Amino acid sequence: MTDFAGLDRYLENNRQTHLDQLFELLRIPSVSADSTKRAEMDRAAQWVADRLSRAGLKTELIPGDGPSLVYAETPPVPGQPVVLVYGHYDVQPADPLELWKSPPFEPVIREGNIVARGSTDDKGQMLTHVLSVLAWHACGMKLPLQIKFLIEGQEEQGSEVLEAKLPEIAKRLECDVIVISDSSQYAKGQPAITYGLRGIAYFELRVHGPKADLHSGSFGGAVTNPALALARILTEIKTPDGKIQLPGFYDSVVPLVESERAMWNSLGFSDEKFAEQLGVAALTGEVGYNTLERRWARPTFDVHGLLGGYQGEGGKTIIPSWNGAKISFRLVPNQDPKTVGQQLRAFLKDHTPPGVRVEVIDLHGGRGVVVNPNSPYMQGAVKAVEEGFDVKPVLIREGGSIPIVAQMVDALHCDVLLIGWGLDDDGAHSPNEKFCLEDFYRGIRASSRLWHHLAQSVVA
Amino acid sequence: MTDFAGLDRYLENNRQTHLDQLFELLRIPSVSADSTKRAEMDRAAQWVADRLSRAGLKTELIPGDGPSLVYAETPPVPGQPVVLVYGHYDVQPADPLELWKSPPFEPVIREGNIVARGSTDDKGQMLTHVLSVLAWHACGMKLPLQIKFLIEGQEEQGSEVLEAKLPEIAKRLECDVIVISDSSQYAKGQPAITYGLRGIAYFELRVHGPKADLHSGSFGGAVTNPALALARILTEIKTPDGKIQLPGFYDSVVPLVESERAMWNSLGFSDEKFAEQLGVAALTGEVGYNTLERRWARPTFDVHGLLGGYQGEGGKTIIPSWNGAKISFRLVPNQDPKTVGQQLRAFLKDHTPPGVRVEVIDLHGGRGVVVNPNSPYMQGAVKAVEEGFDVKPVLIREGGSIPIVAQMVDALHCDVLLIGWGLDDDGAHSPNEKFCLEDFYRGIRASSRLWHHLAQSVVA
Repeated sequence: MTDFAGLDRYLENNRQTHLDQLFELLRIPSVSADSTKRAEMDRAAQWVADRLSRAGLKTELIPGDGPSLVYAETPPVPGQPVVLVYGHYDVQPADPLELWKSPPFEPVIREGNIVARGSTDDKGQMLTHVLSVLAWHACGMKLPLQIKFLIEGQEEQGSEVLEAKLPEIAKRLECDVIVISDSSQYAKGQPAITYGLRGIAYFELRVHGPKADLHSGSFGGAVTNPALALARILTEIKTPDGKIQLPGFYDSVVPLVESERAMWNSLGFSDEKFAEQLGVAALTGEVGYNTLERRWARPTFDVHGLLGGYQGEGGKTIIPSWNGAKISFRLVPNQDPKTVGQQLRAFLKDHTPPGVRVEVIDLHGGRGVVVNPNSPYMQGAVKAVEEGFDVKPVLIREGGSIPIVAQMVDALHCDVLLIGWGLDDDGAHSPNEKFCLEDFYRGIRASSRLWHHLAQSVVA
Repeated sequence: MTDFAGLDRYLENNRQTHLDQLFELLRIPSVSADSTKRAEMDRAAQWVADRLSRAGLKTELIPGDGPSLVYAETPPVPGQPVVLVYGHYDVQPADPLELWKSPPFEPVIREGNIVARGSTDDKGQMLTHVLSVLAWHACGMKLPLQIKFLIEGQEEQGSEVLEAKLPEIAKRLECDVIVISDSSQYAKGQPAITYGLRGIAYFELRVHGPKADLHSGSFGGAVTNPALALARILTEIKTPDGKIQLPGFYDSVVPLVESERAMWNSLGFSDEKFAEQLGVAALTGEVGYNTLERRWARPTFDVHGLLGGYQGEGGKTIIPSWNGAKISFRLVPNQDPKTVGQQLRAFLKDHTPPGVRVEVIDLHGGRGVVVNPNSPYMQGAVKAVEEGFDVKPVLIREGGSIPIVAQMVDALHCDVLLIGWGLDDDGAHSPNEKFCLEDFYRGIRASSRLWHHLAQSVVA
């Protein structure tokens, strides 16, 4: 019999130790987008590996062409399912730095939250599972199933190392269900299990005009301005109605089913509160879908940054030689990011203004995923989350992407559980990223119950 | 009788000295847009003042709320016209630095050109007049008319100091004709006198969306993307046909007259060669006008730089909290930049997508100008340029702006001569700005004749 009381006592007594450990990891600026941070990536990988190794797991670093994968496993338990915990130790870039109230890699507790880059995405969430396994061992309890850990360092950049290594290590990763905590609860006080993620296709567009910057007085009116050409292209990609104009873009989109729409409608989502939370006067998007539907189950197009020309103080009167944009399409099942790249290129052939040339740089991509909300693992997860948070979780989808998830599910023929402890307003990719301190502890507790209920759910 | 042979000998013997002096001035990074360069602005002003003072001119620095004005004058010559030489010692920002083949403030001679920021715009051109006056004095010759110099340090940023001081110093600046060398010859080997300039109205647009950057996965599809809103606004300002959509924008535009069109057609301008020079596949712009007409006599709209969002390496998946653009309208007589600012704000009222807010920052502006191509001073200038360059100049307009020119002409009720020694491909606001070394010397020679012919033209 599982000694839940003993586990709870242990977790209660180790709150500070657990927080200290998270702070240690948060202090490592493991920004995977930044090629100057290679040594920090190594430090973060080593830190995670040490932690798992000290907990008695068979641990190894799997090197690749980029940040190493951390792999670890507990001993097999015959007749019981195998769980693979997936997470990532890399984080998004921290800029704009001037908007952080405290330095991004110097974690602090502010208003009940752990504030630091990576606190919620994904160091804090990922660590709950490492610490819960540690807790079982520390309490002298035998885990009721085998747990494998795969913690990577490139999730924010498209998981290229893992993607490349997947065929080679698939045998080691074999499992019945993948557990991932890299998403959000439905709302503060309302935990959730996520059964769908969007995919992504991320590109950089560069519009090239004259071979050098030109004086906009002497030449203005004679040549196509690359920034205006870019603006026209971006504007033509999506109508004011939110419909994406790439040829064939919606062909493979799986439509929403009425039962899902009904389930989400019952969540009592408030457009008004949401707009207020984000600080916008109006919510906008694809016509014919409400806000949750647009975020969770419809593809969209966004610009992440604008590039090129004069960006300094005051005015400089040039026609820039080039301008660009970082863009992405969020995809839903069954859209394929490679196909979207082809559709984008086809679109640009017909929509590039005369006098400029467009370059498309593929940055990263991944398919979306929807999992069975009625699997036995889901039932076990619901129980574990309910016990960890003292509230029964709701079933939701999530607009974000964990591109590698679809690939792992395909390669490992397994189920997947997306159990996020974060909150919508954590600012996962923004300044002042945070993770609710109590949710960190609740997450560890839910995780400590998860191993038991996953084993039970299959036996039952 | 003017000793032209003596002047020519002196200029020939002082080629290296003159170049050394220009190099000294070019080494001062007097970038008026950069508020950290205030000391360099002072150094440049002092350098110009010293030069004029050593040449025996009564010289003073006129301080203001920004870079000082340099003023100097030779003694009055009764019964003869007064000439005011206007120029500027400030330069455009040098970035993008990585595109310079040699550092922008370390002048070098490369392929017969002086290469440095400010070489053509306007230090090199401006200095030709200072050096020619020096030459008259050095040769012991008495100038046939009074010459005043007004060299400012804010031309690239809208001449605010001069504009503010103009009423106060108008009496000192009184003159019959302003001489400005801050424009281009028609082509290599074909000098020109410019009788028209465009005006400018320069703004920064900032489109504000959510109060912080948002995760584009979790929120994409729910809010208006500020970069896409900006792109739509920019796209709607100008049609693909090159027609600007601000309400009333063309109301005050002075139409081109047929005689001008005919004069310009006779210049044998080649679209093909021009496109090749700029490295573009096609020339584009307002329908119904040819390339010279679009550049010299029609208003236009350009974007100079795009701002905001993630601009680093790789991909960051945010919906930026804001995006912006540096934009300007080039104006023709009789458009007013203040009116254009009002028209832009009126346009934005009707063209701002829901869910974002647009901020307009006024950066600088100035009216265009067209001067009488048949004035006696023009005749004198034609002779001087012909003698300096050994080729008769043609009469052209120029697409660039010297915003203060219109204001000075209005305030001083005088004529103006725009005699540029530059070339179209000098890259005035671009990396590797250059000024043809021989044109520097020809410019000094033409200037040395100008004082004589301006005096003669009025007597005649």
